[in-house]
Amino acid sequence: MKKLRRSARLVDMTQHLLAHPHTLTPLTLFAEQYGAAKSSISEDLSIIKEAFEVQGVGLLKTVAGAAGGVKYIPQVKTEEALHFMRELIGQLANPERLLPGGYLYMSDILGNPQTMAKIGKLFATAYADKNVDVVMTVETKGIPLAYATAMFLNVPVVIVRRDNKVTEGSVVSINYVSGSSKRIQTMSLARRGLAEQSRVLIVDDFMKAGGTLRGMIDLLQEFRATVVGCGVLVETTADVSERLVDEYVSLAKLQDVDFKGKQIEIELGSFFEKRGE
Amino acid sequence: MKKLRRSARLVDMTQHLLAHPHTLTPLTLFAEQYGAAKSSISEDLSIIKEAFEVQGVGLLKTVAGAAGGVKYIPQVKTEEALHFMRELIGQLANPERLLPGGYLYMSDILGNPQTMAKIGKLFATAYADKNVDVVMTVETKGIPLAYATAMFLNVPVVIVRRDNKVTEGSVVSINYVSGSSKRIQTMSLARRGLAEQSRVLIVDDFMKAGGTLRGMIDLLQEFRATVVGCGVLVETTADVSERLVDEYVSLAKLQDVDFKGKQIEIELGSFFEKRGE
Repeated sequence: MKKLRRSARLVDMTQHLLAHPHTLTPLTLFAEQYGAAKSSISEDLSIIKEAFEVQGVGLLKTVAGAAGGVKYIPQVKTEEALHFMRELIGQLANPERLLPGGYLYMSDILGNPQTMAKIGKLFATAYADKNVDVVMTVETKGIPLAYATAMFLNVPVVIVRRDNKVTEGSVVSINYVSGSSKRIQTMSLARRGLAEQSRVLIVDDFMKAGGTLRGMIDLLQEFRATVVGCGVLVETTADVSERLVDEYVSLAKLQDVDFKGKQIEIELGSFFEKRGE
Repeated sequence: MKKLRRSARLVDMTQHLLAHPHTLTPLTLFAEQYGAAKSSISEDLSIIKEAFEVQGVGLLKTVAGAAGGVKYIPQVKTEEALHFMRELIGQLANPERLLPGGYLYMSDILGNPQTMAKIGKLFATAYADKNVDVVMTVETKGIPLAYATAMFLNVPVVIVRRDNKVTEGSVVSINYVSGSSKRIQTMSLARRGLAEQSRVLIVDDFMKAGGTLRGMIDLLQEFRATVVGCGVLVETTADVSERLVDEYVSLAKLQDVDFKGKQIEIELGSFFEKRGE
């Protein structure tokens, strides 16, 4: 046990809390680790708490009592979320992103880990108090969003495969109809991939009619899971006659795509409606 | 500009540096942001530097001069890497993980974002001074490893698809022979997915003969890229007569799989040889 000065303690506690979101750390653990009195640790924590709030890093929640401790809850301020998403929407509105079928080229954005972390933190903010057990997505493009979200919620990720060639023992497969292409597709999840009765947050990069999300929701019934929410980066209302999913949070909404005129009309998604923009 | 006390500065600088690895932050930026003298900022940084080194978070590199500043280089100590990988190998050696074809069930491990972050930090440690421009992997299972590595190196991720149905404009596809199954397979990358002459670090979860890695290396020639290295979580020497890739770093090595006896023999990979274990 090495006795640390307050300044060194602050640095170390900060990095520990950031690395362990949604995890209760007992004050005694810090006290023992640094050879400090619990009262000193409490003072340290109130300094960190204030700095986290001022800088928009998140909340520090203190739980009193014998089983108590401190927990870092990542949280993005609405103002910062707006600033970030307006910038992202500016990037997305570039007409060179237009792809056949009303999709947008987003691989560069989805390939940026820092951007993914910011989006993941937004979803983790939206679902912070929903007791999420696991974040689920379907391969391929939603995967980085799912991990970024799960990282901030401190829960595991489950990836649904788009085929049934999964060599992972007993597999649950369902056929579903893609809402936009009307084609029958398959998705699968290994039986041991998800515990029964889990509380699942579904995350994906793009939603048209919502057929893929609907498929995941149906698949989850086979695991007697509860869907606590669906978070999508971009939803599109273009060419969509009927939504197959009702409850979801989108960060951006593609209103209209004009191929000939090379125009993309995109605005803030439902995430911001709930926050009273 | 709000003047912050040292304690609040330390918390905020710590979280800023952790969130921006391999990024030069000018001291003047901190000084202006906190309304503090550059000499005070320098003192703060030496406190953070020492705490990061003692706790094994990484290095703080100070670059002197007008264009200077401070940079956080994530780095795992060999001792900590050994501790982490021995624990992971203990999990991997569970015979219930045995899958047909000499593979291991790893979805639970790959689904844990905290574990992915630790592995990504190991790869980022191994390739910290290689001037990596981009981390590349092939869908699906290597994706979380690629993002975790890229996060610590502060570079983007490029994901190679296993089909050529990619709707991302002009696509480069190659056929390759899977070293173990000897079947011809296809992998593709959008032309705009990777800038020419990039320095690429390839990351994947599992390597048998190395056919998939070989395919990625061949694909990269089409982009006139330089492969700075290949990092794999688990390599297996079982049933492999010829390695198709020479230069790689593995974290674990599957020596022998005995299906009948339900035995898995797994040990530390080449990452640790170079560190003189």
